[in-house]
Amino acid sequence: MEELTILLHGECSTPLYEQIYEYIRQDIIDGKISPGEKLPSTRLLAKHLAVSRSTTDLAYGQLLSEGYVHAVPGSGYYVCDIKKDWLLSEGDGESVHKKEAKSPGLSGAENREKSRSFQYDFSMNGVEWSDFSMASFQKAVKHMLQEGMEGLFDPGIPQGEENLRQEICSYLHQARGVNCDADQMIVGAGNEYLLMLLDQMFQKDRRIAMESPTYHQAYQTFCNLGWETVSIPMDGEGMEVEELKHSGASLAYIMPSHQFPMGSVMPMKRRMELLHWAGEEQGRYIIEDDHDSEFRYKGKPIPSLQGSDPLGRVIYLGTFSKSIAPAIRVSYMVLPRKLLEVYRNRCGFYSSTVSRVQQQILYYFMKEGYFGRHLNKMRRIYRSRHDALILALKDKMWAKRIWGENAGLHVLVEVASGKGEEEIVRLAMERNVRAYGLGEYVIRPESEREHPVLLLGYGGLTEEQITAGVRILGEVIEESPERENSFQRYPKNPEYRILDK
Amino acid sequence: MEELTILLHGECSTPLYEQIYEYIRQDIIDGKISPGEKLPSTRLLAKHLAVSRSTTDLAYGQLLSEGYVHAVPGSGYYVCDIKKDWLLSEGDGESVHKKEAKSPGLSGAENREKSRSFQYDFSMNGVEWSDFSMASFQKAVKHMLQEGMEGLFDPGIPQGEENLRQEICSYLHQARGVNCDADQMIVGAGNEYLLMLLDQMFQKDRRIAMESPTYHQAYQTFCNLGWETVSIPMDGEGMEVEELKHSGASLAYIMPSHQFPMGSVMPMKRRMELLHWAGEEQGRYIIEDDHDSEFRYKGKPIPSLQGSDPLGRVIYLGTFSKSIAPAIRVSYMVLPRKLLEVYRNRCGFYSSTVSRVQQQILYYFMKEGYFGRHLNKMRRIYRSRHDALILALKDKMWAKRIWGENAGLHVLVEVASGKGEEEIVRLAMERNVRAYGLGEYVIRPESEREHPVLLLGYGGLTEEQITAGVRILGEVIEESPERENSFQRYPKNPEYRILDK
Repeated sequence: MEELTILLHGECSTPLYEQIYEYIRQDIIDGKISPGEKLPSTRLLAKHLAVSRSTTDLAYGQLLSEGYVHAVPGSGYYVCDIKKDWLLSEGDGESVHKKEAKSPGLSGAENREKSRSFQYDFSMNGVEWSDFSMASFQKAVKHMLQEGMEGLFDPGIPQGEENLRQEICSYLHQARGVNCDADQMIVGAGNEYLLMLLDQMFQKDRRIAMESPTYHQAYQTFCNLGWETVSIPMDGEGMEVEELKHSGASLAYIMPSHQFPMGSVMPMKRRMELLHWAGEEQGRYIIEDDHDSEFRYKGKPIPSLQGSDPLGRVIYLGTFSKSIAPAIRVSYMVLPRKLLEVYRNRCGFYSSTVSRVQQQILYYFMKEGYFGRHLNKMRRIYRSRHDALILALKDKMWAKRIWGENAGLHVLVEVASGKGEEEIVRLAMERNVRAYGLGEYVIRPESEREHPVLLLGYGGLTEEQITAGVRILGEVIEESPERENSFQRYPKNPEYRILDK
Repeated sequence: MEELTILLHGECSTPLYEQIYEYIRQDIIDGKISPGEKLPSTRLLAKHLAVSRSTTDLAYGQLLSEGYVHAVPGSGYYVCDIKKDWLLSEGDGESVHKKEAKSPGLSGAENREKSRSFQYDFSMNGVEWSDFSMASFQKAVKHMLQEGMEGLFDPGIPQGEENLRQEICSYLHQARGVNCDADQMIVGAGNEYLLMLLDQMFQKDRRIAMESPTYHQAYQTFCNLGWETVSIPMDGEGMEVEELKHSGASLAYIMPSHQFPMGSVMPMKRRMELLHWAGEEQGRYIIEDDHDSEFRYKGKPIPSLQGSDPLGRVIYLGTFSKSIAPAIRVSYMVLPRKLLEVYRNRCGFYSSTVSRVQQQILYYFMKEGYFGRHLNKMRRIYRSRHDALILALKDKMWAKRIWGENAGLHVLVEVASGKGEEEIVRLAMERNVRAYGLGEYVIRPESEREHPVLLLGYGGLTEEQITAGVRILGEVIEESPERENSFQRYPKNPEYRILDK
């Protein structure tokens, strides 16, 4: 080791100890210093390099902590045999690494799908975010900056901030007839996250009944989490209770106030039958997803199922994704008291997934009345869009039947066409219009549907866009297949038809 | 305990160890086994029931981790007096709850614990949030208000905002030697949420190896999600690879840069052995939780394991909970390219759990250099606190050994005392000091530990508080039991000693 050559750069921004460490480390890797070889003492090396002893101590400490050398008490530092274990495997890894990079697969395509944008997108998740709302949201942020930042970086309450939960509770009580105290509420970053918590609370009897068609993300979430999902057919009033009884499920996931995607409202009688089902056996619960009930354009809002449940068998789920915007990422869940204990025991250690800053912004947004005004304004805007869509569809020969109207943010249209549902959706995409087929939401084999059914969301489109989009849809639906083929007006080249965001 | 009758059902889907656990647990709750009573040894019980020793080990480990029994090194397992501590206090909750909550265990108590606050809390999660950081955070918020609000309410990208992921990537590359592109990163609301995503990506081979002791929240999360957890003993260098090889696990969860709670740094050789283990079979992965590596007070930071993994077998987890504050609720996960496809297929439909507003604030916080300056400032502050704690412990007779120092936000102290770990923690709580026992983090039966070990976090305490807290701890540790009894200065009435937040 007498020949250990280390050129130190005093001017260099790298600390001296690090330069020493790096030299020796590289020499070990390159094999210039052999495994088992003893390094000079820190004292000797310090003298040799004319640096302080603490500098060489630091360098050796670093080598030691990274496992390049080991210390033999009373003797000194010896080089470890890292080569065998480590450098070789690094070698052959290289090729594997490159191979890995080249498997984009289906999901890559799906992912790109998400980033596509269409000129007219009848998405059910589209919402309007007006200048008005932006301004009031900014005011809420400023409110937080002025008043609420103190202590916002201390750990929060797992269920969510007390003041926010109280605001949401009183809103739910007034607007949705939900009966709850703030301590029954869990605030979380999106419905799917709250379902992940619920999942962990039910360790046995993991079979859930869902309507078909249903909200696809919830279905996918339960599948991912290893639940057995049983799809139950619907009649005009909702989930068929007789089928539910024979399903063996202990949980039922329903949307009684405005079923997605069918748009149906569950009448009181069916609600009572479902509550009765839940009450018949220990451990049965109903998940009520009340996703878009803020928006109702005719008649008064239908109160929540939770509000008429005396047994504590309804888990109520709500979200600000539609009432404010999906990007706000705040949902809430009201648990029956019985489940609250289970939640605390199993999931009480999870910190809230919504930051306290975010929760305080939302709190001010609600408390200062911005949320109420925002909702009122949105109801007017969405009603106009709803009316424009109904009007645009009304005189169309191909629009055989419309339903699910007067509430929420989408309607369903049964289409008279020689073309199939998927074909219409595909052809529309080529014309830069995104419509959604009912089939995309069906979770059990269908047999009876005679005609294609399209779901058209209007929350994110202006009235002009709605009219224009429906016009193009009509052309796609009514265009004869031969004509389409001969004209080839809309080439299939994807670069042509996709506008990236 | 000779009369302990356990009927095991081999056919039952419940694993044997769980049946044993459940029997003993129920007997403890029902009072059939009294507090203080010694359980038969795991060897004896295994023989008696004709099951393997590892089965009884697992059952006892579960009872231990849930606080039903405690281990006396060199002697055996003794039943805790849970009735007094726990069942009574839970008491008035409707009786139904208890049955449903299958494993209430410690977590219920922990949960209540969370709402307590102590004058001197040596919590490992305590962080300092200074005026300086507050001001720069506010600047980042204002930045967002001025520039970034446009479009922030459109749905975001499921993996997280592109610009934020790029900032984090380049930070990780520089600071932690992590090799990744932004498209490999998933931003989520906390480590546990990211583990929930990982859970859904591994549908087969759901057995995970974890160090004992380990980060309890991760352990609890995997248990909740139905994983089989195998606890692997550690030597001074980290997880024992031979044990890992025989565990049958396909995932290993480790903290190589600074193990929690032991504070050890995994040397290069052990890292290579682990990577080698992962490379040996398809589908093996290492989860590297790099939770607090921002803070190192001596030598330079140890690069991440991910950075020396040529095979793409390391899942890297990081968080802003320590580097900024737990309440920020932003963590990130870097996936090997191979798993990225799985993520997109299974979990690509989940919206990001961090709102775009929050992500943009963090983006500006990083991009404008506030984060870097914050880290530098925090390193100085934490180093002073670290030094103050070491100094306070140095001359104490009872502090036999200190380790895990020079990095992170806590140290471990081996205590010379006639009292046991739990007793010290309990007595300290009565004096308004919260210290943490190593036993709280142990996930497999221990036998060798001779002395109590305390974990003392210093991130959230001033130097004065640290000194005062250590002084009280010393009094608790050195006070003779008789004196304590006769004085009764600190009544056991919890109302007296708990300051609610």
